[in-house]
Amino acid sequence: MIFPRFLVNGEPCDTLSVLDRGLQYGDGLFETIRVVDGQCQYWDEHLERLELGCQKLGIRFPGRVGLKKDADSLVQPSFMGVLKIIVTRGVSDRGFRMNAANPPNQVLSLATPPLYSSQYYQQGIKLVLCRQRLGTSPQLAGIKHLNRLEQVMARREWDDEYQEGLLLDQFDQVAEGTMSNVFIIDGHRLLTPKLEACGVHGIIRDQIIKQADTLGMEIRLENFSKARLLKADAVFLTNSIFGVWPVRSFEKQFWESHSLIPRLLTILGFST
Amino acid sequence: MIFPRFLVNGEPCDTLSVLDRGLQYGDGLFETIRVVDGQCQYWDEHLERLELGCQKLGIRFPGRVGLKKDADSLVQPSFMGVLKIIVTRGVSDRGFRMNAANPPNQVLSLATPPLYSSQYYQQGIKLVLCRQRLGTSPQLAGIKHLNRLEQVMARREWDDEYQEGLLLDQFDQVAEGTMSNVFIIDGHRLLTPKLEACGVHGIIRDQIIKQADTLGMEIRLENFSKARLLKADAVFLTNSIFGVWPVRSFEKQFWESHSLIPRLLTILGFST
Repeated sequence: MIFPRFLVNGEPCDTLSVLDRGLQYGDGLFETIRVVDGQCQYWDEHLERLELGCQKLGIRFPGRVGLKKDADSLVQPSFMGVLKIIVTRGVSDRGFRMNAANPPNQVLSLATPPLYSSQYYQQGIKLVLCRQRLGTSPQLAGIKHLNRLEQVMARREWDDEYQEGLLLDQFDQVAEGTMSNVFIIDGHRLLTPKLEACGVHGIIRDQIIKQADTLGMEIRLENFSKARLLKADAVFLTNSIFGVWPVRSFEKQFWESHSLIPRLLTILGFST
Repeated sequence: MIFPRFLVNGEPCDTLSVLDRGLQYGDGLFETIRVVDGQCQYWDEHLERLELGCQKLGIRFPGRVGLKKDADSLVQPSFMGVLKIIVTRGVSDRGFRMNAANPPNQVLSLATPPLYSSQYYQQGIKLVLCRQRLGTSPQLAGIKHLNRLEQVMARREWDDEYQEGLLLDQFDQVAEGTMSNVFIIDGHRLLTPKLEACGVHGIIRDQIIKQADTLGMEIRLENFSKARLLKADAVFLTNSIFGVWPVRSFEKQFWESHSLIPRLLTILGFST
């Protein structure tokens, strides 16, 4: 059965005006949502972040009801994969100035699930340090906006030899991965960067912060250097699609998988 | 006579795939070119910057011959206005990783000339300080990429009461306007920010740097604070569309138009 993979403003369509401000300026936001058996995982949390992003950028939020309707009509009951939502400020005349009367554009698209080896979860992944840094832009930090050239440039630095790249900020502190947040484990303490100058507040990161107590861990939002990371008991990465990946190797350091990882995967709904 | 206002990869078309990386990540570059009587002003310089930007981002440059052919077929001999060129990395699978085999997409579009009062040139414009700052991202500074959310956010801060907004960087130094570069005049000295941490190397800025000698001026690429700008003999802004605008007022400071401005406008081809 053929079904549409794209909806633009609720209609099957895979194009957008070249005047859309998402293309012109990266003037918009996105969410990538894991879909299991046709169910969008952490839907409420994704929509909450999207709404918050719209508020910060002054983009009219398309509304949860309409987005849910679109998602329901696109995602078949048995679908496994990724639903991506893009919301842009819509079109406007030439120039940075926006036209508040113009409606936002919403693009929903489906993709097959990425193929991740079970070893990434069990033994861990190989992490590489990126030369690309994240810029300091506190006013845009945290939200998942469409200005992602730094991540694109970082991802160019390796091919298949690593599974993720680590990005530092302009102050030599660890920020995040190109597509993930970073945590370190030290005894009964979990540390993750504050992300005040750059980075995205990931949905899984938020869940871990909220559920640390349940896991018997103390959570600290605290910036740390690469040297500090290398001395940690364990390092792991999180995002909405893969969930949690322990880091097996980074530079000259190797880690055994930590007992917290399978517990995290279970608690977060990623157990296989 | 109706003629197309848009060409996508050489064909009349005003849409682009929603999978285009320009929309997905702002993964591309642009140029806005002033067109006078069907002639693209500073064409070679714009194409040079575009090619340099492609090199920096690792995007295949579409080539000057093809872009010239597109521009020639779109721009009618009598056309007055703006030609915008967008070059993106094209489409790819989901994720930041690019597919080097996929061709870039090129979008050319025409717009009518913005209506600027002759007073902006003669008496000068009203400039406002933006709360929005430019982020520090030295690896992307200088090129005219599609990640322009900071400019969009800055432009939201006023309506019609000013003609341009001034952006500071993260170090409290003057960076540029939302759509222009900034110069100050001090005696026989011209100063303009180095733009090593952020900002765009404007075509008109480059021309002034190259032609300062001809004007009997000493040029310095030097960062300066807002306080320094307020004490300058004169302040002016430059971009490819309006050319040169003297600043008449900024905060509590007022300036008379400087004798250099009409000479600059003449030498740069903006005399009316």
